[in-house]
Amino acid sequence: MTKFSSFAQTLQSSDIADLLALTEKPEVISFAGGLPAPELFPIEEMKKVDQAIYEKEGRKAVQYGTTEGYVPLREEICKRMKNKFFVDCEPKDVVVTTGSQQALFILSQILVDMDQTVCMESPSYMGAIMAFDPVRPKYIEVPTDDKGIVPEELDKILAADDSIRMIYVIPEFQNPTGITWPIERRKQFMEVINKYDVTVLEDDPYGEIRYDIEKLPSLKSMDTQGKVVFLGSFSKIFMPGLRLGWIVANPQIIDKFVKYKQAVDLGTSTFGQRQAAYFCQMFDMEKHIKEICALYAKRRTLMYDSMKKYFPEGVTFTYPQGGLFTWVTMPEKLDAKEMMPKCLAKNVAYVPGGIFYPNGGNGNHFRLNYSNMPEDRIVEGIKRLGDVLKEELSK
Amino acid sequence: MTKFSSFAQTLQSSDIADLLALTEKPEVISFAGGLPAPELFPIEEMKKVDQAIYEKEGRKAVQYGTTEGYVPLREEICKRMKNKFFVDCEPKDVVVTTGSQQALFILSQILVDMDQTVCMESPSYMGAIMAFDPVRPKYIEVPTDDKGIVPEELDKILAADDSIRMIYVIPEFQNPTGITWPIERRKQFMEVINKYDVTVLEDDPYGEIRYDIEKLPSLKSMDTQGKVVFLGSFSKIFMPGLRLGWIVANPQIIDKFVKYKQAVDLGTSTFGQRQAAYFCQMFDMEKHIKEICALYAKRRTLMYDSMKKYFPEGVTFTYPQGGLFTWVTMPEKLDAKEMMPKCLAKNVAYVPGGIFYPNGGNGNHFRLNYSNMPEDRIVEGIKRLGDVLKEELSK
Repeated sequence: MTKFSSFAQTLQSSDIADLLALTEKPEVISFAGGLPAPELFPIEEMKKVDQAIYEKEGRKAVQYGTTEGYVPLREEICKRMKNKFFVDCEPKDVVVTTGSQQALFILSQILVDMDQTVCMESPSYMGAIMAFDPVRPKYIEVPTDDKGIVPEELDKILAADDSIRMIYVIPEFQNPTGITWPIERRKQFMEVINKYDVTVLEDDPYGEIRYDIEKLPSLKSMDTQGKVVFLGSFSKIFMPGLRLGWIVANPQIIDKFVKYKQAVDLGTSTFGQRQAAYFCQMFDMEKHIKEICALYAKRRTLMYDSMKKYFPEGVTFTYPQGGLFTWVTMPEKLDAKEMMPKCLAKNVAYVPGGIFYPNGGNGNHFRLNYSNMPEDRIVEGIKRLGDVLKEELSK
Repeated sequence: MTKFSSFAQTLQSSDIADLLALTEKPEVISFAGGLPAPELFPIEEMKKVDQAIYEKEGRKAVQYGTTEGYVPLREEICKRMKNKFFVDCEPKDVVVTTGSQQALFILSQILVDMDQTVCMESPSYMGAIMAFDPVRPKYIEVPTDDKGIVPEELDKILAADDSIRMIYVIPEFQNPTGITWPIERRKQFMEVINKYDVTVLEDDPYGEIRYDIEKLPSLKSMDTQGKVVFLGSFSKIFMPGLRLGWIVANPQIIDKFVKYKQAVDLGTSTFGQRQAAYFCQMFDMEKHIKEICALYAKRRTLMYDSMKKYFPEGVTFTYPQGGLFTWVTMPEKLDAKEMMPKCLAKNVAYVPGGIFYPNGGNGNHFRLNYSNMPEDRIVEGIKRLGDVLKEELSK
């Protein structure tokens, strides 16, 4: 019998993981994942991108690289930060990461000690909770309304607990709720956090996937004290399999982050980084993103309209203005985890909402993804879910 | 001022890191890195590999994948494990990692708690020490002779300390010494560890880069109790920039490892994994490795002969039968770190040996890499090093 570390002993199989494994069968209409629509991956362009990399850079493209990342990619990221997120930065302020997941993991490792506190929206992204768990922090769920975190409540929490080291937020098209913080709310949030010694993780993988809403300034663009770390990702605007994300942070954090990343994987794939950089240079990324937005907006609307048509009264859901997810709330007597086997019996799936709450509870929600399913399956899947909901509510 | 975790506070700039940064100038003949010879990277073949991936798999190749890794790559790895390392295993026993570095990091996280003990050869790979440091373990350097770890000494150490959770070894062409454990030593080692509740990390990135020595059975091939985790890498036989390694381990460890890796980066690049798998399927990896071995053997011999010619008496060095490194020992009055500025002034560089000892000391060694420098620069660099050594010894 292998002896494990005390944290590893807590890594048990979960019944939710077992349920989610069942959603991967091809006959299941799965709204459970967070996968982009593969039909928009620019495969034909990538054939040209790869050839160009081998022609222009040859062997350098596959040798060890620096931990900070490939400079031309960091330059492309700086342009995106300026144009999309209103942030002025230079390559030295950017580290390329092996997906945003790695950024979440490393930031918690360098910012938080065991039993110190992480604040999050309630609910929040389950993958972030998974990334932070190895530190074994306490979690405080900050009261959150339909405009995001409630600044007055956050202020009270920060004033009462000096072990809070990190606040994790997704201000645009939040995962799982799809909610976007209005500009006024962002300003109030920054006023609050500027009063405390705390670092904010602004996770923004969906900010460029927007439908009917103007661009809003990121928290990082309002950050005058170096308190915000911005986390970006190529997974939703480009291709997730390459595992490419980035952070923008103050020089102290960049320094510690790079040293820790060196221990974790030495650096992110040098070829993969070039694939993203060359695509930005050779093709029109903005046109590509527009196509993604058009398709997802159509699917979002179709899913919303289908829910209005097929879901029974008493079940509510969000109308996201961007991103990949909508969030469903059932009457409190229903539990999405318990209901899941019934849905799987009808070959339709979601993620039960409880796992998005670090401290548990809140079983009467579930998250739906609309980016990954073609239109006919969206309608059919929502119809089946509606049938289960009606049955359960009539009991 | 950002508040950091207690471990992050220990991540300081080191004077060695500053010195090593200087070795990257193009005018420096650097024997400091561990880089493969780029001239053998199969760039022309990779052009065909990438096109084949896009043609055959298209979008699947760049979508999210499983944390365990791409099955056809794990199948190729099982073949290598059988043919090269005499280990019978199946894909379920294998996890693909974002370089071996990630395997080192995650294994220490799941096996060791703070203040528990890790045993290593003395000296040992500095990158492994860096990977284990975040756990904040104690390190015991096990007495090591020219045949590897001394089993009787290891036995005494294991008997005396029940906080030992992990033994890290590189039995083939060790980094930094170049030493290979003979088969008798391997058997004795396994007899010792089988008496204790401890996990062995057998790190073998160089095992396929062998010159004048027969294949030897790996520790994992002698492991009857699931105590050995084998760590393999594509960095030295293929291309390091893709960041591809693997582990083979018992089912308990695989289970915890996968769960932890999910928190760390969700999974390794799906496209990168296919690049390695398709190369194995489409081209002759064995022929490719033979070319690497032929070139490195030539450089090894040239460096050895040059050292014999140019190094003064009293300076000794190993004659590695594989791998990328040779290890130089100077009289104890000399210190390789202090001598480094003098070498850099002559535009030649090595890694000072002290950093390969987790508990410090042993300043009178340095490590030389011979894989990355063309022949004329090897001779010239060793000549310059010889001049510095003569000067220092005559003081």
